[in-house]
Amino acid sequence: MEWEIIARDLTFSTPSKIVLLVIDGLGGLPLKDKTELEAAHTPHLDDLAQKSVCGLTDPVLMGITPGSGPAHLSLFGYDPLKYTLGRGILEALGLGLEVEKNDLVARGNFATLKNNLIVDRRAGRIPSKENENLCRKINSFIGKRKNPQITLYPGKEHRFVVKFKAEGLSDSLSDADPQKENMPRLPARPLSPESEKTAQIVNTFLDEVTYFLKDSPKANTILLRGFSKLPSLPTMKELYKLKAASIAHYPMYKGLARLVGMDLIKTGPQLNHLFDSLEECFQNYDFFFVHVKKTDSAGEDGDFASKKASIEEVDTFIPRLLALKPDVLVVTSDHSTPSLLKSHSWHPNPFLLHSKTAQSDKVTRFSEKECSLGYLGRFQAIYAMPLMLAHALKMKKFGA
Amino acid sequence: MEWEIIARDLTFSTPSKIVLLVIDGLGGLPLKDKTELEAAHTPHLDDLAQKSVCGLTDPVLMGITPGSGPAHLSLFGYDPLKYTLGRGILEALGLGLEVEKNDLVARGNFATLKNNLIVDRRAGRIPSKENENLCRKINSFIGKRKNPQITLYPGKEHRFVVKFKAEGLSDSLSDADPQKENMPRLPARPLSPESEKTAQIVNTFLDEVTYFLKDSPKANTILLRGFSKLPSLPTMKELYKLKAASIAHYPMYKGLARLVGMDLIKTGPQLNHLFDSLEECFQNYDFFFVHVKKTDSAGEDGDFASKKASIEEVDTFIPRLLALKPDVLVVTSDHSTPSLLKSHSWHPNPFLLHSKTAQSDKVTRFSEKECSLGYLGRFQAIYAMPLMLAHALKMKKFGA
Repeated sequence: MEWEIIARDLTFSTPSKIVLLVIDGLGGLPLKDKTELEAAHTPHLDDLAQKSVCGLTDPVLMGITPGSGPAHLSLFGYDPLKYTLGRGILEALGLGLEVEKNDLVARGNFATLKNNLIVDRRAGRIPSKENENLCRKINSFIGKRKNPQITLYPGKEHRFVVKFKAEGLSDSLSDADPQKENMPRLPARPLSPESEKTAQIVNTFLDEVTYFLKDSPKANTILLRGFSKLPSLPTMKELYKLKAASIAHYPMYKGLARLVGMDLIKTGPQLNHLFDSLEECFQNYDFFFVHVKKTDSAGEDGDFASKKASIEEVDTFIPRLLALKPDVLVVTSDHSTPSLLKSHSWHPNPFLLHSKTAQSDKVTRFSEKECSLGYLGRFQAIYAMPLMLAHALKMKKFGA
Repeated sequence: MEWEIIARDLTFSTPSKIVLLVIDGLGGLPLKDKTELEAAHTPHLDDLAQKSVCGLTDPVLMGITPGSGPAHLSLFGYDPLKYTLGRGILEALGLGLEVEKNDLVARGNFATLKNNLIVDRRAGRIPSKENENLCRKINSFIGKRKNPQITLYPGKEHRFVVKFKAEGLSDSLSDADPQKENMPRLPARPLSPESEKTAQIVNTFLDEVTYFLKDSPKANTILLRGFSKLPSLPTMKELYKLKAASIAHYPMYKGLARLVGMDLIKTGPQLNHLFDSLEECFQNYDFFFVHVKKTDSAGEDGDFASKKASIEEVDTFIPRLLALKPDVLVVTSDHSTPSLLKSHSWHPNPFLLHSKTAQSDKVTRFSEKECSLGYLGRFQAIYAMPLMLAHALKMKKFGA
């Protein structure tokens, strides 16, 4: 993406402050005749939309439904088709793991082996509690060793994340998972010469764990897939000269923010805590990523009323946000999550940008339909970052 | 284009059905104050536009007037700047020729040679009937041979297509055409070492035909240009897992559809036959390309009234189309053909997409002007395909 190439040269540091409020999964589809956002009573967002420049964004490309990773990278100005994040890393971030430069992570399943065939790839979806016990036992069995240090982190039901900590590990490995049932166990294959040693380490570990679990009734082996290391992304400091702070509840979004070099601000569990934290740290940074999760969760649950209520709750905090007088305020979402589809979708995101340097357009309500009439038109979300930096007067002219 | 890279990974097969109705050359320019589409009485398309999401597409890039080849490839989701089709191939497809993997084709002219100079590159635009006779004679003169098998296919006036059938032919040849008059005949030059043998075959053929025609008064030699072989495009099955059918009257569009792996459905010569055929094969496929040619032909003729009437005729079939209840219906054009310009143009195409998963916008009529206010904005036509697949729920999420 051309933007990244010129970002480093054009940006410079100023005291002006940018707030990016991401209302996760905000965009929706109509139930009867209104979307969640249209049905919600949002006097503050509507007033703000009238005083802002609006548009609609596509997170990746038109028609493409993004996961949280690519959707946020795009909002942070990183080309999501260039910086792809391994499944292992995203799962690790989602569990709140600290992943460091040398670490290799992968997603894992407990599975059932019988007569040398994988007969259940999910070990009968064992209860999360049993998963926790098994991970603890394996960690103390394997944990005696120091190099590599290997740790399992339990997720839900049969799922976990494994982390290998050592120098020189490579993520160029095939999945140690036959993908289908009634197939034998599959070792990880090295996909390049430099990953041969890593494959040996992983496969020895798989054999040891399988031996250790041999008397367990269901969860008597493990499968690993999505081997990945920490991707090397330039930081927002390097690209944009920004001192950036992240204020989010969920591990996945904190993890994504850390990947681009943001500081993680401690915050409490409620929505108002996000805004408390923002107020507290407002003097110390010049870019703030504030992440609201509830809207997306309600959309994923197919709960139109709850998503509408969550939007209305966010609306009540807009005056507090404006009272901070950020030089640029953007309110948008990372992707749409229509309650109707109970999942992320490809529909574009409503987007508003409020700044002294922005001309307001004809948009009178903050909604999908109204934003489509905005001055910014429909654009790729990766341009949110150059727009924010421009309106904050943090970019010089390109060329003479 | 990034889209192709991710298409293979994201798409999957489902029973949902997509209909792409291409009204060729639909977009126009105003005569007095209305375009052909605005002047037409189109109650069904207007009603559909109100219930659909609309926009305007640029077939290749803004300002670029596309031929039928690139315009359709774009609608099929293929980057028209990556997959360029040789003129020879397009001419052959336009004549309805079967072109196979090893075949080499080129466009040809009958021309007049005098004192070893080409004095008329079009042989006085001989009548098509004479062209047919000459081609037949040359085919029986040359046709005795088997390797290569060489066949001429007459077009209009002085134009024909020639097909060389043999193993190992290359299309890396310069035109055997001086382009200007009062120049000597020009042999085809090999543009790479592997095309030397092909150049010899072509040039021997040119000499033989010129000798054979020596007593013909006007058409006493031939010129060849645009040597091309069948381009190797991934099929829609490979890229999108679609079982695609093409319902079109004209050879060019059938040929383009075959290039991307669509099945060609037999149909009758009238507009209603297209919809008869669609109904008949609707259970057997999940993607349908329906091509209406009359609008473009009327535009090329500069016949505003006839183009308007053709649009009105298409409108009457919309209820039959909707009665099939496709999961996604797109109505658009491949390029504009304003009667005012009597040719293809660079103006954008009206585009509507109707689906349960699409939110309708504020567009109340299907017209160039109204579509510009649509929710989809103005976008490159290559995104029609990801949008159709997304709305048909045939794509999974990109990244986690």
